[in-house]
Amino acid sequence: MAVRPFDLSVYLITDETLAGPRGVVETVRQAVAGGVTLVQLRDPVNKTRHLVETAAALMDLLRPLGIPLIINDRVDVALAVDADGVHVGQSDMRPAKVRELIGPDRILGLSVSRVSELVPEDIDVVDYLGVGPVYFTATKPNAPTPIGFEGVAAIRAATKLPIVVIGGVQAKNGEAAIRSGGDGLAVVSAIMAADDPKAVASELAAVVAAAKSG
Amino acid sequence: MAVRPFDLSVYLITDETLAGPRGVVETVRQAVAGGVTLVQLRDPVNKTRHLVETAAALMDLLRPLGIPLIINDRVDVALAVDADGVHVGQSDMRPAKVRELIGPDRILGLSVSRVSELVPEDIDVVDYLGVGPVYFTATKPNAPTPIGFEGVAAIRAATKLPIVVIGGVQAKNGEAAIRSGGDGLAVVSAIMAADDPKAVASELAAVVAAAKSG
Repeated sequence: MAVRPFDLSVYLITDETLAGPRGVVETVRQAVAGGVTLVQLRDPVNKTRHLVETAAALMDLLRPLGIPLIINDRVDVALAVDADGVHVGQSDMRPAKVRELIGPDRILGLSVSRVSELVPEDIDVVDYLGVGPVYFTATKPNAPTPIGFEGVAAIRAATKLPIVVIGGVQAKNGEAAIRSGGDGLAVVSAIMAADDPKAVASELAAVVAAAKSG
Repeated sequence: MAVRPFDLSVYLITDETLAGPRGVVETVRQAVAGGVTLVQLRDPVNKTRHLVETAAALMDLLRPLGIPLIINDRVDVALAVDADGVHVGQSDMRPAKVRELIGPDRILGLSVSRVSELVPEDIDVVDYLGVGPVYFTATKPNAPTPIGFEGVAAIRAATKLPIVVIGGVQAKNGEAAIRSGGDGLAVVSAIMAADDPKAVASELAAVVAAAKSG
């Protein structure tokens, strides 16, 4: 079975703290109205019951819209709500094991920050790469050293997998991110903390579309 | 399919910090030599890859001995290593959903501290209860208010499920824990931080055997 279709253009990663009193689900609702094409639920803080409840609410919102929901790290949460996929980092479960647990048709993404992380046992089972961080970001203080757009380009040259660029990416540098080899932009705070998530998502969608056609 | 057999008599819950430089796997190895009958891997701190590696090492140790390994909270880790079961608390995934994910034959345990938590939707799908905390313990500072042995007895009177008593339980009060309705003693620091885990496990096994026959 082939993996279900997905579009990395405007890839939103949730952050409950940044969403503030508006909440994760309402922020995502506004953002998808602006053009977010894929949502990743990331929550390394809260307990599992809360994660499952948030994930279920996001599925109720996104499935009718045909926008995939991917769960960061937690295969159990993904299976519990029948999410569209899982995204793992270098300290999470190995991609081959994740693939075994989620089956062939769910989307599987992997974070990489160096060409040396493109090992066949991982790469052969994933559907896309999250590449970065381009810049240092306060959202993920323990992230690897920033790799710049040169780092993205190096990984782009080394693999055919679709790439979503992450780490300090926003409208003003979005064109550079796509030109360095990205198929889309992954953002956290740019949307989650925005006064108007819909407007920011819409601007990012326009930047990606322009960069791809240019 | 019936759930696989298990014995709650001396139920060890791991703690990597308390194990210190000896490590979780070596501490468990010594403890099972003394009479531990079931091991629960609990690690709310480390990343998923580390959890899976520890769980796999414990499976290699325990499966040949016929001692079940149960994973706290993380259904994904349990499935990844084909563990014998999962233990959840009141803030983890709902037991009915866990049962759906782990299938009918794996062991499923639930922490309860009040009779009001014995709701049919949970109770009908679990195989045993972890009841406590009897006393306040530093191992789990956010645990519910201690319920004493009276609290254990109240839950014992309200359900036929096997009960393992937890929270400040050790050799000197183990008899009281069994007499209050427990089928076994769950310990963390008493074994994980012990100079001689085998000796402590052996003492606990003797206490449980004496209390059950007395």
